[in-house]
Amino acid sequence: MGPEQTLDLSREQANYLFNVMRLGPGAEVALFNGRDGEWAASVAEAGKRGGVLRCVRQTAPLLLPPDLWLLFAPIKKARTDFIVEKAVEMGAARIMPVQTEFTNSERIRQDRLQAHAVEAAEQCGGTFVPEVTDLHRLDRVLADWPDGRRLIFADEGAVGRSALLPDLVAADADQQVQGSGWAILIGPEGGFSQAERDRLRGLPFVHPIALGPRILRADTAAVAALTLFQSSLGDWR
Amino acid sequence: MGPEQTLDLSREQANYLFNVMRLGPGAEVALFNGRDGEWAASVAEAGKRGGVLRCVRQTAPLLLPPDLWLLFAPIKKARTDFIVEKAVEMGAARIMPVQTEFTNSERIRQDRLQAHAVEAAEQCGGTFVPEVTDLHRLDRVLADWPDGRRLIFADEGAVGRSALLPDLVAADADQQVQGSGWAILIGPEGGFSQAERDRLRGLPFVHPIALGPRILRADTAAVAALTLFQSSLGDWR
Repeated sequence: MGPEQTLDLSREQANYLFNVMRLGPGAEVALFNGRDGEWAASVAEAGKRGGVLRCVRQTAPLLLPPDLWLLFAPIKKARTDFIVEKAVEMGAARIMPVQTEFTNSERIRQDRLQAHAVEAAEQCGGTFVPEVTDLHRLDRVLADWPDGRRLIFADEGAVGRSALLPDLVAADADQQVQGSGWAILIGPEGGFSQAERDRLRGLPFVHPIALGPRILRADTAAVAALTLFQSSLGDWR
Repeated sequence: MGPEQTLDLSREQANYLFNVMRLGPGAEVALFNGRDGEWAASVAEAGKRGGVLRCVRQTAPLLLPPDLWLLFAPIKKARTDFIVEKAVEMGAARIMPVQTEFTNSERIRQDRLQAHAVEAAEQCGGTFVPEVTDLHRLDRVLADWPDGRRLIFADEGAVGRSALLPDLVAADADQQVQGSGWAILIGPEGGFSQAERDRLRGLPFVHPIALGPRILRADTAAVAALTLFQSSLGDWR
């Protein structure tokens, strides 16, 4: 987007702006495309089946999140939607549903979850929308894990005290390769299988963390782990 | 509760156990009352309008949360329920709905929210249920604030970098009076009014904190603030 640039509206967009919101020529709207920050634009043409917006000025810069992926096992629809919403608000760069041994869902509606991520970004004034990937099996994701990326594993078996933040910050300082990113893995409601836990704990790029003495739901664990990351290694510092 | 102690069931409890769950004499159930941890109990008598349980053994000790209150402005029903659920999971000792200038709700169903807190404790294997208070006006709550209790104020106006955890831990170390507790205040979706923010920032027991560069919904902010508290000052250490 740039000053004076015009954008043609689809029929659905025109219907929303001119019929639902009852905007007319000259009205101002906020635009974002995930790359150019937020722009103010004015309605140049308003029709029944389309219309044209003209960019006026940038109103917010693009705020990119840290290079952080959130891997989670899909749960009930409402709570899966919630995890996607919270990942957007909390600043994940990529959202990856993974199928674990105890995951009930064998499929997800990727397009619906991606649309939900766009809506969450609109709601929280975000200018970036993370990609929501298709569902992949956890064992394959781990087998193809990218070099240098570290995985924080929210291990419900790791009860009791946890030196979480200092550990992670120390690991970050030790790591010579910078910029290779992080990921957080949250399990399903039934937790991970013992085989999955053993495998995860044996992988050199995995950092197990504990999230306190109480059992957290998957959606709560996602927000808690994202908070710990952002406040110690991410962009809340 | 204690070994061999018996408990009479209400009609609703008997209906749930014997008709819905189809349990019979000798079946084992898990009990908690918020004071004695979790107990295994067996069905001693099962009737249509009542029944008797007999405590067998304690299966989990009482896990008390830190002395932490969560103050929040009620929002839409589903998200208010969510905040109560998350406060229980994350370990708040008391949940206090407060009416701020920008709070739409003028009343809450305290009994419904308290029942929701009990259900959340059951779901997450908790042995403690925080009290949910009635709705009170924020200005009166602040006027009657208890001596020594410190209030963490999630101030959406405090953008940018935040030395959140070190600040709080330092404040805790400086404080001579120990054991007087903490509270977290989360605002409504529309934020606090300027007058409220000015007043809060002028109070000696208030510690404003920032929650990153993105705008968080009230329910997200509640989980994030509880996470920061538990991991730096609470029982996740």
